[in-house]
Amino acid sequence: MKKRIVIALGGNALGNTLPEQMVAVKSTSKAIIDLIEEGHEVIVSHGNGPQVGMINQAMIELSRADEKQPNTPLSVCVAMSQAYIGYDLQNALREELLNRGIHLPVATMVTQVRVDADDPAFQNPSKPIGRFMTKEQADIAAAKYGHEMKEDAGRGYRRVVASPKPVEIVEIGAIKALVDAGQLVICCGGGGIPVTLNGNHLKGASAVIDKDFCSCELAKELNADYLIILTAVEKVAINFGKENEQWLDHISVDEAKEYIKEGHFAPGSMLPKVEAAMDFASSAPGRTSLITLLEKAKDGINGKTGTKITL
Amino acid sequence: MKKRIVIALGGNALGNTLPEQMVAVKSTSKAIIDLIEEGHEVIVSHGNGPQVGMINQAMIELSRADEKQPNTPLSVCVAMSQAYIGYDLQNALREELLNRGIHLPVATMVTQVRVDADDPAFQNPSKPIGRFMTKEQADIAAAKYGHEMKEDAGRGYRRVVASPKPVEIVEIGAIKALVDAGQLVICCGGGGIPVTLNGNHLKGASAVIDKDFCSCELAKELNADYLIILTAVEKVAINFGKENEQWLDHISVDEAKEYIKEGHFAPGSMLPKVEAAMDFASSAPGRTSLITLLEKAKDGINGKTGTKITL
Repeated sequence: MKKRIVIALGGNALGNTLPEQMVAVKSTSKAIIDLIEEGHEVIVSHGNGPQVGMINQAMIELSRADEKQPNTPLSVCVAMSQAYIGYDLQNALREELLNRGIHLPVATMVTQVRVDADDPAFQNPSKPIGRFMTKEQADIAAAKYGHEMKEDAGRGYRRVVASPKPVEIVEIGAIKALVDAGQLVICCGGGGIPVTLNGNHLKGASAVIDKDFCSCELAKELNADYLIILTAVEKVAINFGKENEQWLDHISVDEAKEYIKEGHFAPGSMLPKVEAAMDFASSAPGRTSLITLLEKAKDGINGKTGTKITL
Repeated sequence: MKKRIVIALGGNALGNTLPEQMVAVKSTSKAIIDLIEEGHEVIVSHGNGPQVGMINQAMIELSRADEKQPNTPLSVCVAMSQAYIGYDLQNALREELLNRGIHLPVATMVTQVRVDADDPAFQNPSKPIGRFMTKEQADIAAAKYGHEMKEDAGRGYRRVVASPKPVEIVEIGAIKALVDAGQLVICCGGGGIPVTLNGNHLKGASAVIDKDFCSCELAKELNADYLIILTAVEKVAINFGKENEQWLDHISVDEAKEYIKEGHFAPGSMLPKVEAAMDFASSAPGRTSLITLLEKAKDGINGKTGTKITL
């Protein structure tokens, strides 16, 4: 039976540099087109951690080399990352579709996502982006660009930005129109370009929206049947890495809440994924979230693996 | 009477830096929304000369500063420029629409445009992009990146790339779907991301497609009534700058051919604009091209100014 599926690709599906990306999108496309070949309707969203960091760094290097070039806001870098990734990804999808004899057009939408200017996340920037720096480099960046810097697990300093919750996908009408027209749509890249509403003006925010929360919002607004959140493990576990580790096949939102209370999921890693999955599953009856590996997405939809979260 | 209008914005409509762009898109939006307020359907395309040069430069600076970052192909830079410009432009359009009480959604499409790998333009790169360099800097760029460099009218050296003719807009189906759904669409930015067909694979080309030729292709594929090509003068002239200078109100394609033969239009400046205008006007009966200033677009459509080119 045909299902509407939103699939949220993570960094692993895209690689860290352009040559890596051009290879990664090929296998990523195979896994996505597997779902389409099964008869499902798929909408693709993706992260942009390494990419937006790289673009941000490039724009900083430019303003260093050419004083006429001002620094580029993070929101603009997110926009650029959507096309940087979307262009490659849509071509890999197109090629894989044609290789299988499927004539389905692919399109990438520049997507803004509204966040609340009063979101408490703005008071506590916590999402690291870009390259690692020495303390000295970090102090310079803080002084020159007003960036907030944080020491990251002994590996050096990185810029941290706010990660507010998505409130509304600004271009949802365009995304719906494309999906209804039978397009395979790539959208909400990097969690969307974060903007706040200021009268009739949408103002870019210095933030990066979590791509899983954004994909959850997308899946809700598109009234999807499935939200697939991809990660580096086949299933979610409780007591992860311990002797009594237990892989989960199917949990309810209430069970997930209990597990969170018991501290089973790591913040900044599995926790936000489980939270986004719970949010989607509890948003309306019949909505299912699935957390698994990219290459297991098809088996997961067919109930063979992954962790399913339902109401 | 409602007309379908493709409007091709030039560099003047967008500015040379991000702060300039954020100002420029405001007045640009006013001129575009004037057309919509008159009841017309508008599709927006735009150039990206300064922007793709800037992004290309940023990526070069990045690969200089960080040896793990390879150089970024021009096609990827064009993709990034589409989101860089589209994000700003769509917000300025959205705001101007709302300020006038018009509820029309705006969307930016990442757009690829297929060119012919055998296009003779690839043998003779002629379109300058990016910043001016000294001979020494130019020699380094040529040696390091294989860029072709050319001396530009005594102002220094610039990279030159091929400017092949557009053959097909890859995402035309998505653009049509959005237009049909009542979206104000921004697409074909910078003449589109140039790609060549290699089996089922679309390969990025090291080129920049002329935005007026691309807009002509867009207007043809959308079966538009009008193609508006914006430039820095209100009308096209023959004997431009001479004593017998004569501004043109309305010319036929055949008259335009004569004027071209007589050498009235400068190559790389008014000539490609007139050629694109002729191409659209001669592609089907009832199609009109208009060359004028951005702020005169509305008056031009109402027959009050600009140079009209028809069959």
